[in-house]
Amino acid sequence: MPKILLIQGANLNWLGIRQPEIYGRTTAEELNKMIEEYAKEKQFEVENFYSNSEAETIDRIYRAYQEGFDAIVMNPGGFTYQGYALRDALLGVKDRLPYIEVHISNLFTRGMHSALASAAVGVVMGFGIQSYFRGLDAALELIRGNGPGASSS
Amino acid sequence: MPKILLIQGANLNWLGIRQPEIYGRTTAEELNKMIEEYAKEKQFEVENFYSNSEAETIDRIYRAYQEGFDAIVMNPGGFTYQGYALRDALLGVKDRLPYIEVHISNLFTRGMHSALASAAVGVVMGFGIQSYFRGLDAALELIRGNGPGASSS
Amino acid sequence: MPKILLIQGANLNWLGIRQPEIYGRTTAEELNKMIEEYAKEKQFEVENFYSNSEAETIDRIYRAYQEGFDAIVMNPGGFTYQGYALRDALLGVKDRLPYIEVHISNLFTRGMHSALASAAVGVVMGFGIQSYFRGLDAALELIRGNGPGASSS
Amino acid sequence: MPKILLIQGANLNWLGIRQPEIYGRTTAEELNKMIEEYAKEKQFEVENFYSNSEAETIDRIYRAYQEGFDAIVMNPGGFTYQGYALRDALLGVKDRLPYIEVHISNLFTRGMHSALASAAVGVVMGFGIQSYFRGLDAALELIRGNGPGASSS
Amino acid sequence: MPKILLIQGANLNWLGIRQPEIYGRTTAEELNKMIEEYAKEKQFEVENFYSNSEAETIDRIYRAYQEGFDAIVMNPGGFTYQGYALRDALLGVKDRLPYIEVHISNLFTRGMHSALASAAVGVVMGFGIQSYFRGLDAALELIRGNGPGASSS
Amino acid sequence: MPKILLIQGANLNWLGIRQPEIYGRTTAEELNKMIEEYAKEKQFEVENFYSNSEAETIDRIYRAYQEGFDAIVMNPGGFTYQGYALRDALLGVKDRLPYIEVHISNLFTRGMHSALASAAVGVVMGFGIQSYFRGLDAALELIRGNGPGASSS
Amino acid sequence: MPKILLIQGANLNWLGIRQPEIYGRTTAEELNKMIEEYAKEKQFEVENFYSNSEAETIDRIYRAYQEGFDAIVMNPGGFTYQGYALRDALLGVKDRLPYIEVHISNLFTRGMHSALASAAVGVVMGFGIQSYFRGLDAALELIRGNGPGASSS
Amino acid sequence: MPKILLIQGANLNWLGIRQPEIYGRTTAEELNKMIEEYAKEKQFEVENFYSNSEAETIDRIYRAYQEGFDAIVMNPGGFTYQGYALRDALLGVKDRLPYIEVHISNLFTRGMHSALASAAVGVVMGFGIQSYFRGLDAALELIRGNGPGASSS
Amino acid sequence: MPKILLIQGANLNWLGIRQPEIYGRTTAEELNKMIEEYAKEKQFEVENFYSNSEAETIDRIYRAYQEGFDAIVMNPGGFTYQGYALRDALLGVKDRLPYIEVHISNLFTRGMHSALASAAVGVVMGFGIQSYFRGLDAALELIRGNGPGASSS
Amino acid sequence: MPKILLIQGANLNWLGIRQPEIYGRTTAEELNKMIEEYAKEKQFEVENFYSNSEAETIDRIYRAYQEGFDAIVMNPGGFTYQGYALRDALLGVKDRLPYIEVHISNLFTRGMHSALASAAVGVVMGFGIQSYFRGLDAALELIRGNGPGASSS
Amino acid sequence: MPKILLIQGANLNWLGIRQPEIYGRTTAEELNKMIEEYAKEKQFEVENFYSNSEAETIDRIYRAYQEGFDAIVMNPGGFTYQGYALRDALLGVKDRLPYIEVHISNLFTRGMHSALASAAVGVVMGFGIQSYFRGLDAALELIRGNGPGASSS
Amino acid sequence: MPKILLIQGANLNWLGIRQPEIYGRTTAEELNKMIEEYAKEKQFEVENFYSNSEAETIDRIYRAYQEGFDAIVMNPGGFTYQGYALRDALLGVKDRLPYIEVHISNLFTRGMHSALASAAVGVVMGFGIQSYFRGLDAALELIRGNGPGASSS
Repeated sequence: MPKILLIQGANLNWLGIRQPEIYGRTTAEELNKMIEEYAKEKQFEVENFYSNSEAETIDRIYRAYQEGFDAIVMNPGGFTYQGYALRDALLGVKDRLPYIEVHISNLFTRGMHSALASAAVGVVMGFGIQSYFRGLDAALELIRGNGPGASSS
Repeated sequence: MPKILLIQGANLNWLGIRQPEIYGRTTAEELNKMIEEYAKEKQFEVENFYSNSEAETIDRIYRAYQEGFDAIVMNPGGFTYQGYALRDALLGVKDRLPYIEVHISNLFTRGMHSALASAAVGVVMGFGIQSYFRGLDAALELIRGNGPGASSS
Repeated sequence: MPKILLIQGANLNWLGIRQPEIYGRTTAEELNKMIEEYAKEKQFEVENFYSNSEAETIDRIYRAYQEGFDAIVMNPGGFTYQGYALRDALLGVKDRLPYIEVHISNLFTRGMHSALASAAVGVVMGFGIQSYFRGLDAALELIRGNGPGASSS
Repeated sequence: MPKILLIQGANLNWLGIRQPEIYGRTTAEELNKMIEEYAKEKQFEVENFYSNSEAETIDRIYRAYQEGFDAIVMNPGGFTYQGYALRDALLGVKDRLPYIEVHISNLFTRGMHSALASAAVGVVMGFGIQSYFRGLDAALELIRGNGPGASSS
Repeated sequence: MPKILLIQGANLNWLGIRQPEIYGRTTAEELNKMIEEYAKEKQFEVENFYSNSEAETIDRIYRAYQEGFDAIVMNPGGFTYQGYALRDALLGVKDRLPYIEVHISNLFTRGMHSALASAAVGVVMGFGIQSYFRGLDAALELIRGNGPGASSS
Repeated sequence: MPKILLIQGANLNWLGIRQPEIYGRTTAEELNKMIEEYAKEKQFEVENFYSNSEAETIDRIYRAYQEGFDAIVMNPGGFTYQGYALRDALLGVKDRLPYIEVHISNLFTRGMHSALASAAVGVVMGFGIQSYFRGLDAALELIRGNGPGASSS
Repeated sequence: MPKILLIQGANLNWLGIRQPEIYGRTTAEELNKMIEEYAKEKQFEVENFYSNSEAETIDRIYRAYQEGFDAIVMNPGGFTYQGYALRDALLGVKDRLPYIEVHISNLFTRGMHSALASAAVGVVMGFGIQSYFRGLDAALELIRGNGPGASSS
Repeated sequence: MPKILLIQGANLNWLGIRQPEIYGRTTAEELNKMIEEYAKEKQFEVENFYSNSEAETIDRIYRAYQEGFDAIVMNPGGFTYQGYALRDALLGVKDRLPYIEVHISNLFTRGMHSALASAAVGVVMGFGIQSYFRGLDAALELIRGNGPGASSS
Repeated sequence: MPKILLIQGANLNWLGIRQPEIYGRTTAEELNKMIEEYAKEKQFEVENFYSNSEAETIDRIYRAYQEGFDAIVMNPGGFTYQGYALRDALLGVKDRLPYIEVHISNLFTRGMHSALASAAVGVVMGFGIQSYFRGLDAALELIRGNGPGASSS
Repeated sequence: MPKILLIQGANLNWLGIRQPEIYGRTTAEELNKMIEEYAKEKQFEVENFYSNSEAETIDRIYRAYQEGFDAIVMNPGGFTYQGYALRDALLGVKDRLPYIEVHISNLFTRGMHSALASAAVGVVMGFGIQSYFRGLDAALELIRGNGPGASSS
Repeated sequence: MPKILLIQGANLNWLGIRQPEIYGRTTAEELNKMIEEYAKEKQFEVENFYSNSEAETIDRIYRAYQEGFDAIVMNPGGFTYQGYALRDALLGVKDRLPYIEVHISNLFTRGMHSALASAAVGVVMGFGIQSYFRGLDAALELIRGNGPGASSS
Repeated sequence: MPKILLIQGANLNWLGIRQPEIYGRTTAEELNKMIEEYAKEKQFEVENFYSNSEAETIDRIYRAYQEGFDAIVMNPGGFTYQGYALRDALLGVKDRLPYIEVHISNLFTRGMHSALASAAVGVVMGFGIQSYFRGLDAALELIRGNGPGASSS
């Protein structure tokens, strides 16, 4: 069964409460439940990792690499701005642990840049909490071999 | 039944042949067939519109607005660079005809900017031709009311 | 009788419907009628040319040069951003066919730049659809010899 | 009867003498006379205010606000470059005293920026001294209620 | 008794009326009274100097230096943008006449830069008219020797 | 009694020892004592929170929000440069927990930018350790309802 | 016999008439005749394709690829500024259909950039209409195997 | 006898007192005397004009043009930064009233730009108060016909 | 015996595994052993400190200052990009605890900037793991008094 | 017989050996022979001048001007980057000694700028050593009067 | 007797012939003679050093330092653009051998920057060949002790 | 025995005398002697090459390549700023003649960029004249096969 590490970066423990006009009103707890149900339905294992610390997140990624996870789906939250050390960690594991970036809001509309997106296989953004489900779908297809260039051979 | 206009922008009629190391080897014809099958399975109507002309594409968008389409999913291809007039057209219809942008490759990895993405609800990029299917999924959820902010009320 | 080519650039066929908070609610049809009446009152001939295609607009300008028009008044709409080929065409005919640029909104308030304005004799912007009438007045004065530098000799 | 304050900014007392290849040969005196005649013909009151001092001009604007003027038409002349304090004054009175900016030459052709134009309802430039008359026309229409968005309701 | 020159720069005579959503509704007259009362309570002398003219303000600063003032507290208002000559004057007197800058609004939130702040001992901004009282407190502490580095020896 | 969280960001545990020519010679311990005395005198509760970790600081801010603090006064120290995740946390709580930024030195003199200041109500800088007391005063006035716009109604 | 597609981009149908001080006085018709004669003399086939439309030009390039042309020589004219979609088309066919860019004037002297030149094997510019003949010579040598790196083996 | 207007711009009334480490210790009064003696020795008329107001300085320049002065030598002082309106005045009179710019310090060493220098015939900077005498010498040679291009014929 | 703190910044626990084409294949464990042997041979004490947390690293530096270390040799790894708070800590202790920066790869070849290098005595980069030994040699010479300016007296 | 000075700038004596993947494998000696043969065939005189010194090259250009050469063809090699003094020399002689710039590789593909190209009549680049022959052809046509604007009269 | 090294940088041996519309028609020979006469009149020794080589010029400056020259007056000509190594040499000798920069034309009018001017005591530019004489006068005053700050004590 | 070419670039013949506060007081002669002794001790051959001429240095590098040197250690001195032609030469020989760059001072502290460092294997900077010995050590290790990536296999 595919095993996915879902990382919720800085400030996302605050979801549904902080700036709901941008991030919506679903709380972190509600989102966790929705993701667990989705995992049952789509038959994959998921670990929900929340952290406000870039260092902790880097450590978690290296352990995930050793524990045999199949993909990382992350909403970097506050790490989006300057998470260059985190990006290096993601680049360091990408051969066996592909990274998929998701954002609740559309960064292009807000004029924001992501320091991490260049380390991702792909990015999904702007669909509210649906972005998580589209990102998980993409991760599952990737694990099944339907990624970029899949139809090349 | 939801009705989606799928626009393939400049150079995408050439898919599968031009620079396969970036865009994969699925041809435009194969992709069309895959999308039609997906539409049957997921129960939506789709029109596949290919054009190398920004002017033609602008005209098509205004007609789609009058014909009652529910969403636009577009891979802008060569319009990505400078399609500012196209962006104005998308902004002009967005209240009733939301726009979802998809890209086969990850623009962030290639250091590219999209002139259109700020007019989109959301963006999916980097998953090869799977980006189209994730974009269509997002469009369907949006039409069903599961878009950004959907869970706010 | 003075003969003026009035060009409505990309997206202006959509006037009155697209983003009325910026462009007002007068439709293209209503505007056309108002301009025809103004032409009768002020005694000039006017042709209303709408196009979303920069290439078509370039072709129209060269033909207008050969057909003996006296001035071009254009609201470039979506060509404003990147219409450099169009600008070259306007520069190419400017000795006999002066160009006057009009905009419904004030570009300075919106932080926008015009790729075409450096090819114009003059620019009128920000007065809603009144900008067209002030631009036509300026064109008529120019044709009558009351242009920039007119009072120099 | 509409009451317009016409401001001639820094260096414009020198009109017709300074750099006539750019600004033409009509002198300030001749221009004043032409404007007075235009006011009679078009039935409006006009005060011609010349100043090389940004501070004096700011003071004049605040007084005009209290004296019940209906609009300001200004050629900012040398204030165009860095008149940010003046711009704040214009923004401060704009709800009751709209500002219209005019320039004898086309700023876009000369690669110049206006520090004030973002505070204006609209801008007219490039038509020589005719720019004043087009600006006055626009002011009169505005006072009559034919401004931007006028046809919206 | 400490003697402070309080300078109100360009447009501040208009306080309470111009853009109250940014600057609040307290008028210049009301503010003057509040400051006089504060001076009585805190036992210092204050002169309220209003000017829209950078030149006049420079002249006032040089005279204050000769008249033995102890500190300048200034809200530069419209001089904030480009008051480089004023900054040179403040730098010229700073050994005996320290300068404290105050702003009603938070410049960082508005994306503004201050041309003068690098000549100040310190800056207070964003607390509405309370910024004046915090700036006066800081000036009084400075005059009493409790400034930056005061506790160094 | 008003309850203020005073945050001392990265490197401020080192106060009085690190670069005294910029930051003065008062040590962190001496400063703590001075602040406690000020709290007694001015009748407010204060918690002194020191951290070199942005993640810990973010966590503390969210807890303070839940514990009913009335304001945050922070000298961000080393977080000033790139603390964008911290800024998002401050924006997330600002409706009930306003943020006031203080700096010992004048950032403008040192050519520094603050990544956090746009999330603050106001900023006090350059008055040495007096900046803390002016910032606390401003916080108390804010809590008492004398903030920006307070006199508007 | 080598088969070359000669593309004349936006505004070049106007050659010899538009801005002769930059582009010379040879008309498009005269140039066509000269090129046909050169083709006879040098023994190659040439098709002269004029278009003001970037979309049409992209379509022509893809067809040329399928029709077995050996090289493209193009003066992009007005496409020089922003022809990024056209550049993608040229990159897409470059393995079998090399592109040579020619300009009548020297872009470096005019401070212009070419959006297309990075997709070319080589560039010839500044020699008036002789640039076409030097570009054709280079294309013929390339087809004969005397291109860049030809002498490497 | 040649007639030179010597203008001392913003803050120069303060010479010898303000920042002597940059501007030296000669006071304005001492400098005036030295210049008068130099005028006697070299046989020219000189008027010493001090002003902190750009507007006043513009007015003085136009009057000097009418009074038949032969050259302007100016140390712009605080006008150096942003004196664009003043530059326009200098450009407006330059055919009959050439402008020579002098600075006590070397702008290049201080990383400063002059907004006015592009309107000058020539510039002398960095030689302390000797810069004035070198500038006056250059003005006299210019009046005598030994200017730039003088030896051309 | 000289006492050196060797800091391995973010991601360096992963050495030899992450991107070996850039960082080589020596693992962190192998490197530790090599450094210990070098310390024995060259007669110095060394502590190997690994951390992915900037906050922890700042704390370690302050403690090292108190514990009497003689120098810091650091490969900042992922802190290289944005470690400005860390840089402030290094500047804060530099009088007694000089900092030497080492990098396995040559930052100039990779177009990277170091946020920390301006706080270093010197920098060694590009020699693979040999960079550590050259950095340690430089530290030892520095401790022995053979640093920059050593031969000055 | 036309007389052409062929200049080979910095590093070109190393041709065929240095970075053959960019510059090909033809050596300087082989190229010299090929050029001499071409000169015999096309009936012109050529001098092959190699130098790594910009100063020597400047001197050679001035002598060539005096010796009656008809054109300069130069591959500037290492002077391409910063050869501004060389550019001034070329501008100084261009009325009688036109300059043609050639490059083996396409500067646009390599993202390079040429400091010299704005002084050239025209530029040929990207065709390997064929660039020399196309540049010589262009020079011969120029000498024969078939340059830019040749067909104008 | 004061001893001055007059350096004429790259391209100045060509004076009077190259671009006389910028540099005038006085030849290098005529200028040399004028300078020798001026040296006799003003009683100083001068050596005229011409070079197109930055390296030679650097060597000459170091020798001048050892030979006891009192000042360097240089028109850097083509070294103006990028002569940073030369600037370092001038900085290296400046304590005993002050440098004065002269230019025939006004760099500000031509939008040029000087890489060397920040190493000069002062700069004279724009007065044609009179710039040399004003620069020599300034050098003589400097040698006599009338330089910047001379009147300070 | 390893054979190293030690290049001392522009201005370094002046070492110990020019700006000793930056470069220390060791003279070129003393340094030469120290390096010769180090060569004896460490058993390698070294040639000390001083030049102020970039062209001469380029020539020396190519000869060194032919004479079988094993490495270049260079302090580029004044070539650091703009030595792009020199960089091309170093890139041209790097496969057999690796380049190591050394600087006496820390470029990062001085805000300087090196035009050459991207052509180096590695860089050592900031350790005073010790930088030379660390650079020579690194060169020797490189020649012995302990370079970057050495431990990879």
